[in-house]
Amino acid sequence: MVEWARLDYLKDTQVNISSEFSIIKKYLSGIGASYLTTNGINLAGGDDCAVIAANSKLLISTDTSVAGVHFLKSMPAESIAYRSVATALSDIAAMGGNPIAFNLSLVMPNFNSDWMKAFKKGLQKISREFQFPLIGGDIAKGPLQISVTVLGKPEKKYLLRSNAQSGDVLCLSGALGSGYIGLKEYKRSGELNSKTKPYLFPSAQIAYGRMIASIASSAIDISDGIVQDLSHLSSSSGVGCNVDLDEVPVVDKQYKKQCLEFGDDYQLLFTVPPKKLFTLQAKLNSCKKKCHTIGVMGGKKLILTNNQGSMRNWDHFQ
Amino acid sequence: MVEWARLDYLKDTQVNISSEFSIIKKYLSGIGASYLTTNGINLAGGDDCAVIAANSKLLISTDTSVAGVHFLKSMPAESIAYRSVATALSDIAAMGGNPIAFNLSLVMPNFNSDWMKAFKKGLQKISREFQFPLIGGDIAKGPLQISVTVLGKPEKKYLLRSNAQSGDVLCLSGALGSGYIGLKEYKRSGELNSKTKPYLFPSAQIAYGRMIASIASSAIDISDGIVQDLSHLSSSSGVGCNVDLDEVPVVDKQYKKQCLEFGDDYQLLFTVPPKKLFTLQAKLNSCKKKCHTIGVMGGKKLILTNNQGSMRNWDHFQ
Repeated sequence: MVEWARLDYLKDTQVNISSEFSIIKKYLSGIGASYLTTNGINLAGGDDCAVIAANSKLLISTDTSVAGVHFLKSMPAESIAYRSVATALSDIAAMGGNPIAFNLSLVMPNFNSDWMKAFKKGLQKISREFQFPLIGGDIAKGPLQISVTVLGKPEKKYLLRSNAQSGDVLCLSGALGSGYIGLKEYKRSGELNSKTKPYLFPSAQIAYGRMIASIASSAIDISDGIVQDLSHLSSSSGVGCNVDLDEVPVVDKQYKKQCLEFGDDYQLLFTVPPKKLFTLQAKLNSCKKKCHTIGVMGGKKLILTNNQGSMRNWDHFQ
Repeated sequence: MVEWARLDYLKDTQVNISSEFSIIKKYLSGIGASYLTTNGINLAGGDDCAVIAANSKLLISTDTSVAGVHFLKSMPAESIAYRSVATALSDIAAMGGNPIAFNLSLVMPNFNSDWMKAFKKGLQKISREFQFPLIGGDIAKGPLQISVTVLGKPEKKYLLRSNAQSGDVLCLSGALGSGYIGLKEYKRSGELNSKTKPYLFPSAQIAYGRMIASIASSAIDISDGIVQDLSHLSSSSGVGCNVDLDEVPVVDKQYKKQCLEFGDDYQLLFTVPPKKLFTLQAKLNSCKKKCHTIGVMGGKKLILTNNQGSMRNWDHFQ
């Protein structure tokens, strides 16, 4: 009688066939387990599927982060984990939803226990912050990539990109450019500080999204830069907009163009019917949050004025 | 007035910022759209999240396929797409569920329209076969990987890995090794034929899983080879098993060891209480399906006898 040679002889399609399950058990199990019951998760991890006791509408979104493209390989694993989940969460925020659980697929070239420890810390951090558990996923061997699927519950009404109306006021939840400035500073200093934090640990605007869910007519998160994301909102809704880019708040005026273009800010861009502006103001005050109005929806074209006075168009309708 | 230079100046974190959305629109939109309403999908594609009108329990599973690890880069894109979804679907089958929708995250190094056309064909094929739509996801630039999240609805009872009881009969939905033989033959001929088809287009055993959902006490799919997967079922259930590997059916006896070890078969391994064997037999007959009994659950150890007569143990309980 001999042991199965620790199963090492089996096809190595996974990180390491004998250690794959010990890695999952040690580093990816039990994250946010205390939120399972309250979030209606019947079964998480350890079986073929997770089971959700859904009794309402569910939001779902998947976001993949690729090393060297969406993050730097050299970044702390804690940040890589946190960021990967936060960018997926941002889609739930843009629908005005509340996250209930997430799945994670981690592909990595090799196993390093320190890296995995830090990665787990990042998952725990965001799980605790938004009180939602990791309920499943897989790990595999390959070039570093993290794919996150987030599930959420919408408020009574969920926010679409496509419902902006002519006359609605275009609003922004915060100044843009903290992603750009954060990455720039991180490349310089390699440190976690007040400037790099918004890049290393971006804030998904979940509370903000829920606050405006019953007020806004449409919303989208700023992940690809305001021009790109505003053009989506505008074209989905079939209504244009006139925005003076000089009026869009940025965190560092010295880098205005880059702050507007870069994305990775995860602020919410949304539209509010004029008659609901008063309600919005009251809510913002009670939640101690801010809002910047940057334009009014109308016409068929998205017209963007820059600080040189010339105008540039991005027209999806022709 | 000038155009926004087709947005090309924006950060190229995606396949190509100006073509990302046209690729999604052309190749990844509308797949299985005719199943949206019947499967309870309120919103699919084009917004930050998809919306599911869930009024029952939901199953969810994520599976990632990496080029060079889970599939050959040289394989037809139609097969790569189909396989990536089928392997995720297999987890729904192992829970006895019925797929209702899937999300897809496609990371690829560059864009090739012929490849994308074939990839779309593979998605359409599996969507049609199991009547479930693609409801969202993302594309990004990077080493070729496909991450699929499948949602399903369970039958009244869902199948766990952890509920096998001492005395239950261990069953297999079909012979093992078609994955191994298929890949071997594909490497030789590079053709789609009856031998390579089970590797290029593996069958998720959805109908089989639903058929046994009310009969079996536990189930798992054979993705990692029978020893690996049986050890999961056995350890999750806390009950051992004695299996003579000579009695496990394989598609080619000449490669018995490889057929048992290789995995990628997606047959179901499940346990049935003795008093339900008659019901199982009747169901199998009416569905014209087969089942192989390969052992009986019992004891604390998983004991595997091979054809040389020597025995090998894989013991999770010590």
